[in-house]
Amino acid sequence: MSMYAYYNGNFGTSETIKIPLSDRAIFFGDGVYDAAIGFNGKIYLEDEHISRLLKNARRIGITELPTHHELSRILNFAVSKADLKEFFIYFQITRSLEHREHSYVKCERHNLLVTVDSFKTPSPNKRLSLITTEDLRYFYCDVKTINLLPSVLASGKAEESNCDEAVFHRGNTVTECAHSNISILKDGVLYTHPTDNLILPGITRKQLLLACEALGIRYVEQAFTLDELFSADEILVTSTSKLCQGAYSIDGTAVGGKDEKTSKLLRDFMYDRYINCNFKS
Amino acid sequence: MSMYAYYNGNFGTSETIKIPLSDRAIFFGDGVYDAAIGFNGKIYLEDEHISRLLKNARRIGITELPTHHELSRILNFAVSKADLKEFFIYFQITRSLEHREHSYVKCERHNLLVTVDSFKTPSPNKRLSLITTEDLRYFYCDVKTINLLPSVLASGKAEESNCDEAVFHRGNTVTECAHSNISILKDGVLYTHPTDNLILPGITRKQLLLACEALGIRYVEQAFTLDELFSADEILVTSTSKLCQGAYSIDGTAVGGKDEKTSKLLRDFMYDRYINCNFKS
Repeated sequence: MSMYAYYNGNFGTSETIKIPLSDRAIFFGDGVYDAAIGFNGKIYLEDEHISRLLKNARRIGITELPTHHELSRILNFAVSKADLKEFFIYFQITRSLEHREHSYVKCERHNLLVTVDSFKTPSPNKRLSLITTEDLRYFYCDVKTINLLPSVLASGKAEESNCDEAVFHRGNTVTECAHSNISILKDGVLYTHPTDNLILPGITRKQLLLACEALGIRYVEQAFTLDELFSADEILVTSTSKLCQGAYSIDGTAVGGKDEKTSKLLRDFMYDRYINCNFKS
Repeated sequence: MSMYAYYNGNFGTSETIKIPLSDRAIFFGDGVYDAAIGFNGKIYLEDEHISRLLKNARRIGITELPTHHELSRILNFAVSKADLKEFFIYFQITRSLEHREHSYVKCERHNLLVTVDSFKTPSPNKRLSLITTEDLRYFYCDVKTINLLPSVLASGKAEESNCDEAVFHRGNTVTECAHSNISILKDGVLYTHPTDNLILPGITRKQLLLACEALGIRYVEQAFTLDELFSADEILVTSTSKLCQGAYSIDGTAVGGKDEKTSKLLRDFMYDRYINCNFKS
């Protein structure tokens, strides 16, 4: 089944929309993206995702950008045309240049690609199996760019091990996962890597910290080690498409399961907030 | 002016050839590339470039690949159709999957994109101005992937400073440039970073070492520092499209110029080898 797709003013499907060679996604991965989920026509945390995309576009030097309002209009147009009950919406901004040259200075236009795909609301009770792998990524991990090959390789390695996600570590320090953030619970406190250039400042990660605040659970934005990950009371993996899920295994070793009550409180809070989003705005 | 382009069996121009959304270059930069120059229909160091592309494709887990011979046939077909006196040929292999998901496990097909553009033989007497910038890239620098955003940003920074190239350094250690290798001459000895995961094993870098051997110039594959770069007798920048050129300035400071004789010997040797390639095979 094809996805719905929008590109620079044209709406179609993933079969009919094609990308010209001037789009520097193709030669350089020269762009940024964001993605959100939703249902009944509402994009969950739309403002946060659009703001992050625009901020990241500026971070890589793209200055001629659509306004927040224009982007919102296009995303909602795509969602409306796709008319899916539950959906995953992906949107990326890339630079354009007719000839291939590394420097972006001659680029004048940006491209906007949007895809809308069907989606199934993630269960807060699904528990994940993880693998660990050395974090060999660049030092722009706070920018959501389409230079994702290290995450592709780690995700493939996880799937080949029949696991759901790969946990990155730089030396002994856990950073995040291939396409999620990761946090641990220990003695009732939630620990998660601080938002520096080694992790993506996940919008769902932020929601998790807000959930902690709402539920009176203390959190500390502080990196933890592999040892601390393995011995954590609970492990929580957050991302746009997972919301918040626990983990039961890492590298084949049983982990977590020692503070299910707090873990469930947080997972259910995140899930309920999503389910109720249509009634809150 | 458009480039000539070939994609999965179709030949056209950069206006007529378009890329489907299933090509994972677009969402992930999930592919590898190589590039070569040539004239009078001959691709310079063709075997080396094809071998490197195939090796890199395997490095990222692409297994169903065209043979060396098939690739050669397609590249030479594209060169022949383009019919340019001097040309730059670019070729990349990417993974395909209908839906966007990080893991590559479900990918079955690869895509082959080739572009052929006009080119002008680089002068061995051109001297470059450089800037330095922290090397924030990943630790797969030995694999020629299309995850090139850090090189795009560094190249843009160089152009905005009216310079030709950006020199990367990890801390005080010089690695390579945004799209070239870099070597120095000191007391008649050539120093260049060893081929580990911090630099691309440049085919032109290898040619430079072969030139040293042919000319009786000692070389050491050993990293050098920023201080050693600034105080070098000569600086040599090598890449497919530059062959071998000297540098006269880094961050606005005059550099090199203390062993022009050795530098010129090497640059001319590299240039002559290219010019004579049509008569050697």
